[in-house]
Amino acid sequence: MNILENLNSPAPLKRMSIDELNTLAAELRETLLKTALKNGGHLSSNLGTVELTVALHSVFSSPDDRIIWDVGHQAYAHKLLTGRYKDFDTLREYGGISGFPRRVESAHDSFGAGHASTSISAALGLAAADKQAGKKNFTVAVAGDGAFTGGMIYEALNNAAGKDLRLIIVLNDNEMSISPNVGGMNSYFGRLRSSPRYLGFKYRLKKFFGAIPLVGKPLTKLSRGIKNAVKRLVWRDNMFENLGLHYYGPVDGGDIKKMQSVLKDAMRDKKISLVHINTKKGKGYDLAEEKPDKYHGVPKGGVFKEKKSFSSVFGELMAKRGAEDKKLFAVTAAMGDATGLKAFSERFPDRFSDVGIAEEHAATYCAGLSAGDMHPVFAVYSTFAQRAYDQLIHDVALQRLPMLLALDRAGIVGEDGPTHHGLFDVGFLLQIPGAEVYSPESYRDMSLALSRGFEFSALTAVRYPRGGETDCDRSVYKSADNGNIYYADMGDKPSTAIISYGRLCTNALKAAQLLHQQGVPVRVIKVLRLKPLNCKVFAELLDGAELLYFAEEGLRSGGFSERVAATLCEQNRLTDKTVVIRAVEDRFVPHGNTEKLFEECGFLPSQMAAEIASKLKK
Amino acid sequence: MNILENLNSPAPLKRMSIDELNTLAAELRETLLKTALKNGGHLSSNLGTVELTVALHSVFSSPDDRIIWDVGHQAYAHKLLTGRYKDFDTLREYGGISGFPRRVESAHDSFGAGHASTSISAALGLAAADKQAGKKNFTVAVAGDGAFTGGMIYEALNNAAGKDLRLIIVLNDNEMSISPNVGGMNSYFGRLRSSPRYLGFKYRLKKFFGAIPLVGKPLTKLSRGIKNAVKRLVWRDNMFENLGLHYYGPVDGGDIKKMQSVLKDAMRDKKISLVHINTKKGKGYDLAEEKPDKYHGVPKGGVFKEKKSFSSVFGELMAKRGAEDKKLFAVTAAMGDATGLKAFSERFPDRFSDVGIAEEHAATYCAGLSAGDMHPVFAVYSTFAQRAYDQLIHDVALQRLPMLLALDRAGIVGEDGPTHHGLFDVGFLLQIPGAEVYSPESYRDMSLALSRGFEFSALTAVRYPRGGETDCDRSVYKSADNGNIYYADMGDKPSTAIISYGRLCTNALKAAQLLHQQGVPVRVIKVLRLKPLNCKVFAELLDGAELLYFAEEGLRSGGFSERVAATLCEQNRLTDKTVVIRAVEDRFVPHGNTEKLFEECGFLPSQMAAEIASKLKK
Repeated sequence: MNILENLNSPAPLKRMSIDELNTLAAELRETLLKTALKNGGHLSSNLGTVELTVALHSVFSSPDDRIIWDVGHQAYAHKLLTGRYKDFDTLREYGGISGFPRRVESAHDSFGAGHASTSISAALGLAAADKQAGKKNFTVAVAGDGAFTGGMIYEALNNAAGKDLRLIIVLNDNEMSISPNVGGMNSYFGRLRSSPRYLGFKYRLKKFFGAIPLVGKPLTKLSRGIKNAVKRLVWRDNMFENLGLHYYGPVDGGDIKKMQSVLKDAMRDKKISLVHINTKKGKGYDLAEEKPDKYHGVPKGGVFKEKKSFSSVFGELMAKRGAEDKKLFAVTAAMGDATGLKAFSERFPDRFSDVGIAEEHAATYCAGLSAGDMHPVFAVYSTFAQRAYDQLIHDVALQRLPMLLALDRAGIVGEDGPTHHGLFDVGFLLQIPGAEVYSPESYRDMSLALSRGFEFSALTAVRYPRGGETDCDRSVYKSADNGNIYYADMGDKPSTAIISYGRLCTNALKAAQLLHQQGVPVRVIKVLRLKPLNCKVFAELLDGAELLYFAEEGLRSGGFSERVAATLCEQNRLTDKTVVIRAVEDRFVPHGNTEKLFEECGFLPSQMAAEIASKLKK
Repeated sequence: MNILENLNSPAPLKRMSIDELNTLAAELRETLLKTALKNGGHLSSNLGTVELTVALHSVFSSPDDRIIWDVGHQAYAHKLLTGRYKDFDTLREYGGISGFPRRVESAHDSFGAGHASTSISAALGLAAADKQAGKKNFTVAVAGDGAFTGGMIYEALNNAAGKDLRLIIVLNDNEMSISPNVGGMNSYFGRLRSSPRYLGFKYRLKKFFGAIPLVGKPLTKLSRGIKNAVKRLVWRDNMFENLGLHYYGPVDGGDIKKMQSVLKDAMRDKKISLVHINTKKGKGYDLAEEKPDKYHGVPKGGVFKEKKSFSSVFGELMAKRGAEDKKLFAVTAAMGDATGLKAFSERFPDRFSDVGIAEEHAATYCAGLSAGDMHPVFAVYSTFAQRAYDQLIHDVALQRLPMLLALDRAGIVGEDGPTHHGLFDVGFLLQIPGAEVYSPESYRDMSLALSRGFEFSALTAVRYPRGGETDCDRSVYKSADNGNIYYADMGDKPSTAIISYGRLCTNALKAAQLLHQQGVPVRVIKVLRLKPLNCKVFAELLDGAELLYFAEEGLRSGGFSERVAATLCEQNRLTDKTVVIRAVEDRFVPHGNTEKLFEECGFLPSQMAAEIASKLKK
């Protein structure tokens, strides 16, 4: 790491030879491979963009020039080049370097990300602001071809057209988002990839003019003019040119020199330009090159374990149901494997659709399927479902079109951090008129919840966390309200009730056991169906309780606890009771391992038990 | 109305001559002009699509063939042709015909709308469902060029590519959404509009082959093959062709015969096709042809009154502030005039951006501007802001980027109905960490709220209703918590408190006056800043109150009342109090005039007073 370990900023890259830059690229690749395999993280995408990152930092002057990474899961090399090499072994650890760009982490992180397709919008804003301030810097948005399956990109391109801004868009084309890309845009990029027309012309012209001696600058300028004219002619009907941008490419993303040359061309261009770079996901790591989707993200230690998880159980139940219900139709937004739909997609390819990173479309597409009397299931991470908020309201719920929303990664997700935690969904789902919401703690709960969803009588959301169910003796629970609510008493005549849902029930039960050991009898109430809630049954379960302790792995504001407390209050059922709500307060939860984040939120059994004990003393 | 009044279904159109269809078009135009000018409604867009609607219904067999209208504000002629002529004078009235397609209203309304850019997604779902069911019908999505500034359209086009579905997309190109269209796509459409290449070729080929006698069917087929090959050659690099669709057009949207011919071509095409129709907004009504943006929607009675409104006051304050703060930057999503930004846009064109119907992009664009140290203001209708839910969380709030969200049409909007009511925003804004939320009742309140937002210290939302402030003597209010909360006592030692925000405070005060007349003393608490709420000050204002009556023009679930009730409950401040929440329950509010809808929700002063009196009796 001779070069890398002595770099405190990317400035020296400007003076390095191509050989040095290539050596630096090798060092970067080695470092990020080592760290990602140890700490877990995004691997394939980062390996693919090493040379591109080096080329960018050798041409542009960050942080004056702003480099914005779309999605942000390809910014490890960027972090290593911008003063974060020494701390890089804390990648994705609590308090350590984030797996995504973050403005608070470095001035070189011009704009944070985590969700896809935002980079050009942000770049347009930054470039417009810089222009207003009279600055002459460049803004560079680096977006993968996967991001181009998301609609925001086109909204931004449409808005960018014709603007006089120092903005360069780099299309990092690796032919994949997480899964191989889908759709018309991907085929189109494929045709562009294999069209060496622009570079052919360009380099032939360059050679031609370069061969004429003693001509000097004026002719070089003329050459550039002719070259651009020729290029424009050839590419006149290129889609990006149609939208008013100047297109450069395609360029080999492994060739730093060529990328430098084209990026410099783009810098000299007065129009907003799009530079098309062909990269290879997983480059330099055989396993990842072979299976870039599998190695998109690697677990800690770098070894994949085929563990049972909520996603895999969902996948099994879907495949089983797919055989029974010929109307069942599964939709995913570029997350087929991650959400467990692989088996379903293989068995029922006609009833499976990966729509790309396009959650808005996915929800309305499901509404259309439902209007056509199919049984659509949209499997999506909780955090990405935020993208479809309006469509769920306007296209699904308002028209009372039944569908099943399978919300994976609900709650705290751990190392991916605040852009990926699923802490908003309960709040926004409870708001949607007519929606039904289930939050299973266990595979058994999930199976029951999905069986309700599979009836397709409403917009039904089943939300479940990342990973697998926790070890917990759930035989202590008794069922109420037809399996929608469960309760377990630790000790006789409990005067304290802990109310929770989802996996936090495991901690609630442990807290109750701790309190019981201290002589405090506690009832744990586990709510499987958050909406609609049978208030009568629920309230009866609270008879005799003096302290109601709500534990919620989600935002307090607009969450389940507030809902229920307000309703009980209105029904005059709380007059002799004390209410405590333990939830995520008005803030974003950082990245780190889930146990650590639970501690930060006060969700550990010992913390809950202590808080309850302190309230009882008063 | 000889033809129209005898039509109970669109089926007879198939047998009508072009002359009859043209007469029908004239009758449709006359009817919708008359009704829209009487009842208010969307005028320009409906006038522009009369012939297109006639052509569609004369070629396709609705409801077996499904016609889906994007946005839906151009479906009046469709409604008149599908059995709703007799009831059409109830357009937009409570209990009457909706101004938008609604599945519950007619089998011919295949998919509802109100928000833009959803039609192709829905059509794709319906067509896929029909294919699974083995049906042979067509699905037709009719989307304006305005809808093509929204990202969902591209997500859907990307997903449509290569699919074997009987799906036809009609691009209704009137060069406008509500305001004249903006951006690269619009320029591109402009170039397509003026390229008669495809039709030229097509008709010349047709003429050529038609001129050869005695050839019959085989050659017609051959002719079609050659024609398509030629067309493909010419249009190979057309953007839609690049995405894998077949493009037909442009066609004159005033010429029913030509449209029929091209639509039939598209029906015979095995690929998903896009038919480009040039229409004229406001066609047939001089005033609307001249100023199609002004006549996009007309008020009841058809006469525009330049009345002071929250939008106009917002516009004035923005223009004033724009002169003082050179960093102030206004962004709108195709609603510059409607949100009151006309003056600002004229005075500060460099600091104004209409991004098209692209709320997602608008929010992240504002985040970019804010990251670049500008002071962005996004003026948007409450209901359309739902589109930017994720971007407000992920790009704005998570990065603590200050911006001002000016939410127009918050609350019940009246005749436009459930797709346009702004009943979700309080719930979702209270959820967003760090956001500040103001809900003014009056222009004075609004001025104060905006002055806070103009400090750009946080994501600040100021939400205000459609129309103007109500007549109300607000001098009775006293200020608390630095103007964030107000209270007024009707009578001595009030034991009842009505808590409200926004314009509903006017009714709350009237209810209090009614109760006071009946001998019941009441305190009205008006909350201007919903978040953060100074709970201590707020709770002190409740001292002595036994009944807390919350009145909220928004969804109960996750709304302000539940929030506050839960918080007070947790603070043990409700032990001796009764709580009643009057808000919009778990449902969608229909269309109709606002007074009528208020009555349906129980928001009239007399209703509130009666409800309070009944609670006091218990």
